[in-house]
Amino acid sequence: MLLKTLREQVLEANLELVRRGLVLYTFGNASGIDRGEELVAIKPSGVPYEELTAEQIVISDLAGNIVDGNLRPSSDLATHLELYRHFANIGGVAHTHSEFATAWAQAEQPIPCFGTTHADYFHGPVPVTERLTASEIAGDYELETGAAICRRFAELDPDAIPAVLVAGHAPFCWGPSVAEAAHNAVILEYVARMACHTLSIHAETRPLPRALHDKHFLRKHGRNAYYGQPKETK
Amino acid sequence: MLLKTLREQVLEANLELVRRGLVLYTFGNASGIDRGEELVAIKPSGVPYEELTAEQIVISDLAGNIVDGNLRPSSDLATHLELYRHFANIGGVAHTHSEFATAWAQAEQPIPCFGTTHADYFHGPVPVTERLTASEIAGDYELETGAAICRRFAELDPDAIPAVLVAGHAPFCWGPSVAEAAHNAVILEYVARMACHTLSIHAETRPLPRALHDKHFLRKHGRNAYYGQPKETK
Amino acid sequence: MLLKTLREQVLEANLELVRRGLVLYTFGNASGIDRGEELVAIKPSGVPYEELTAEQIVISDLAGNIVDGNLRPSSDLATHLELYRHFANIGGVAHTHSEFATAWAQAEQPIPCFGTTHADYFHGPVPVTERLTASEIAGDYELETGAAICRRFAELDPDAIPAVLVAGHAPFCWGPSVAEAAHNAVILEYVARMACHTLSIHAETRPLPRALHDKHFLRKHGRNAYYGQPKETK
Amino acid sequence: MLLKTLREQVLEANLELVRRGLVLYTFGNASGIDRGEELVAIKPSGVPYEELTAEQIVISDLAGNIVDGNLRPSSDLATHLELYRHFANIGGVAHTHSEFATAWAQAEQPIPCFGTTHADYFHGPVPVTERLTASEIAGDYELETGAAICRRFAELDPDAIPAVLVAGHAPFCWGPSVAEAAHNAVILEYVARMACHTLSIHAETRPLPRALHDKHFLRKHGRNAYYGQPKETK
Repeated sequence: MLLKTLREQVLEANLELVRRGLVLYTFGNASGIDRGEELVAIKPSGVPYEELTAEQIVISDLAGNIVDGNLRPSSDLATHLELYRHFANIGGVAHTHSEFATAWAQAEQPIPCFGTTHADYFHGPVPVTERLTASEIAGDYELETGAAICRRFAELDPDAIPAVLVAGHAPFCWGPSVAEAAHNAVILEYVARMACHTLSIHAETRPLPRALHDKHFLRKHGRNAYYGQPKETK
Repeated sequence: MLLKTLREQVLEANLELVRRGLVLYTFGNASGIDRGEELVAIKPSGVPYEELTAEQIVISDLAGNIVDGNLRPSSDLATHLELYRHFANIGGVAHTHSEFATAWAQAEQPIPCFGTTHADYFHGPVPVTERLTASEIAGDYELETGAAICRRFAELDPDAIPAVLVAGHAPFCWGPSVAEAAHNAVILEYVARMACHTLSIHAETRPLPRALHDKHFLRKHGRNAYYGQPKETK
Repeated sequence: MLLKTLREQVLEANLELVRRGLVLYTFGNASGIDRGEELVAIKPSGVPYEELTAEQIVISDLAGNIVDGNLRPSSDLATHLELYRHFANIGGVAHTHSEFATAWAQAEQPIPCFGTTHADYFHGPVPVTERLTASEIAGDYELETGAAICRRFAELDPDAIPAVLVAGHAPFCWGPSVAEAAHNAVILEYVARMACHTLSIHAETRPLPRALHDKHFLRKHGRNAYYGQPKETK
Repeated sequence: MLLKTLREQVLEANLELVRRGLVLYTFGNASGIDRGEELVAIKPSGVPYEELTAEQIVISDLAGNIVDGNLRPSSDLATHLELYRHFANIGGVAHTHSEFATAWAQAEQPIPCFGTTHADYFHGPVPVTERLTASEIAGDYELETGAAICRRFAELDPDAIPAVLVAGHAPFCWGPSVAEAAHNAVILEYVARMACHTLSIHAETRPLPRALHDKHFLRKHGRNAYYGQPKETK
C-alpha cells in the first residue's frame, strides 16, 4: 500500500470519529498499519480536526521512530504500537474518550453482553484492564497502557473482541483496517450507552445466553456468515 | 398497488427511521406488503441508507421466495413474514435497534403505560417476548423470532398494541401501512425514553389508570375518535 | 390587537416549540388570547408543523364556539379555555409532551426547586395535579383537565408559577403572552432535565433555601428586578 | 491589548459557549481582563446571543464602575470581578448553567476525578462552595457569590483547578484567557456528564489514584508537558 493511501485512510477514520460525535476538541486518535512495510500512520498530537490534512499524518516504525512527517505524533502512539506488535491481525486502532464507553472505563466495569447489538460485534463482554501501578505510571506510561491491554487479552481473542476499556481512562478499539477500528469505536459507544440505560431500567438484568450471543456473532462473522451482501471476488 | 409504489413507500419508511435518529449505520429494516398480490417489499441486507434506492428493495412472496430484486433481503425477512402471516390487518413492519426501546428489550421488561403519550398509541403495556430456547436459536432463528412474537400476542390484539420487544434483541413495530409502522417505531422510542426517565425520577411510579388509558387510545382510534382533522372521503 | 397579529404570534410560538425540540410530529399546542375581544387563537388539531400557516390558526370564543377558521381546533382547546377563564393575567398557554417534564408528570412528582435556574422562572416547586377520577375522564375530559389545574392553583399564584404537571399526562405552561408561554415551556423542560440528573447524582438533594429562591425570582421579576436591560417606555 | 481586541475575544468566547450547546436563551456570560489597564470586558445582561456584537460588550474597572458601553453589564459582573481581584493569574471567566455541571452544583457534590479526561484539565475534584447565608443573599449577592468561591479556594490552586460549582446555582470556570475559560467550561460539562453516567453504572466507583491523576495533569501542563505540538517562540 502506498503511504499516501494509508495516510488518507487514517485521516478519513479520524474524521469519521468526529462526524459520529465521539470526540470533543482534539481528543482521540486513530492509526493504521502497513504490515508489509511495518509502518504505522497516526494522527498528530493536538491538531484541530477541522485543519487536519493527510500530509500531517505522522509515519512511525514499529519501534516508535518517526520516519516521515513534521509534527509530533499523538501522545498515545506507544499504546498503538504495543497493540500492533501483539495483535497480529489488526490493521487499525482507534482511541476515543466517547461519553458512555469512557463512563464504563471510569466505573472499571466490563460491559456485559445484554443484547444482540453487542453480540453482533463483540464476542463476549468488553473487558476492562487492571489499574496501572504507580511505577508503571511513572515509567513509560503509554507503553505500559498498551502492555496492560495485551495482558488483559492473554486468554481472549482480540479478533473476536475488538475493544477494551482502559481502567480510569477510556476505550481502545481495533479492527482489520483503520476504517473498521473507527467503526467498532462507534458501535462500542452505542452499546455502552444502551447497556447503561438497561441497568437503569432493571439493575438485575441478565447477560444474553451464550447460544444467542454465538448465533449473532457468527451470523455476521466467520465462514457461515449470512448478513449483508456476498463479498465480491475480484 | 404497483410494485413500484410499494417499493417507494418502503424506501421512504426506511429513510424516515434514519431521519428520526433510530438507526446507526445499516441497522434496522422496514417492509410493506401488497395483500392482494401477497408480495412483501423489504430493505436489502447491509446496504448503506444513503445509497439505498427504490429499485434495490427486494420483493419476496409470503413463503420467502425472492420474486424480484438483485440483492439479498434483510436477514430479518423471515421474522417479518411470520408477522404478515399471523397479523391479518397489518400492512408494514419496522425493526430498529433504537436506543431506549432496545434497552427495555435488553432489560426484558415490558414498558408500562405511564402516561397519555403511551396510551395514545399502545393500548396496554408494550410486551416482551420469552427468550428463545437454545434449539430455537440453532434452528430457523429469524422465523422462531417471529413465532415468539406471535405466541406473545396469542391473547393480545396486534392492531391495538402495534409493537413488541424481543427479549435480548430489540423492538419490532407494525401498522396498517409501512409508513405507520415506521411512525410507531418513532413513537415507541420516545415512549421508551420517557418511561426510563420516569423510573429514574420515581422508581415506584404507578401505571396510568385503565380509564385514562382507554380514554386516550380511543380519542385517537376507533369509531368515536376526535383527534386530528376529519378523514376526507374520496 | 388584530386577529391577524394574534394568529401570527400563535403560529410563531408553536414553531418555537418545534425549534427547541419540545415536540414530536404533531404533539403539543400553543394558544394566545385577545383579552379585549375575548377571542382565543389556537393551533388546529393534527396538522404537521411544517405545513402550518397563520390562516389555519383557529379562533374560538371563551365558551369554545369556533368564530373563525376552517379546521378543527386542538383537542386540548377546552383545557386552554379553562385556564384563560380562571387565570386573569395570562395571555398565552403552551402544552407539550416534552421529554423530561412529561417524565415528571408521569412520575406524579412535583419538580423541587433545586437551583437558581428554576428559581429564576418558577417561584416554588412546579406542582402536579391530582389524578382525574373515572367519572371526570368519562365526562368532559379536556375541561376537567383544566379544572384539575385550577384546583391545584387554589392557593398558588399562577403568575409566579407559570407551569403545572398534569398527572400521568404532561405539562401546561402559560405567561403574559403566547411567546412567553412557549418560553416557559422551554425553560421548564430544561429545569426538569437538570432536576432528574440532580437526583441521579445525589438522591438526597435538598431544595434551595427559601431566601435564595426568593432572591433569584425577584431579581428577574417584580418592581426591583435588575436582570436584563431596562424596559423602554414608549 | 486594545479594548477592541479584548471585546472581540470576549464576544467570540461567549459565542463558543453557544456553539457547544452550553447556553439556553441568554443564560451564561464570559468576560476577559486586560491586566495592564485593569479593565474587564463582559457580556451585557439579557441580550440574545444571535444579536450580540463586539461593540455591545461592556467595559468595567475592577471596582465595578462602567467605563465604556451603553448597556447594563451581566448581573453576575460582581462575581467575575471578585475572581479577578483574588486569582492573580486568570485572564478570563466563563459562567454557564450547562446541563450536567449545573446538576452537580444543585446536588452540592464535588465532581470526583473518575478518569484521565478530568485529570487532563482539573488537578483534583471540582469543588463546590458552601451555601450562602440568608444575610449574604440579602446583601451584595453577586459579590458574596464571588467571595464564597474565593473562600473555597483558600487552600486550593485556582490555576490547577480552573472551575468551581456554586452550591444550588451553577459552575464558574476561568483560565489564562477568556478563550481558555470558555474551553474549560466545555470540558467541565463533558466531565460532569461522564461522572454522572459513571455513578449510574457503578455507584461505588473509586476516584482515580493520585499517581495517574498527577501524570495526566502534568503531561498537558507545566514544564515537562509533552502533549500537543511544541509552542513556537516568537
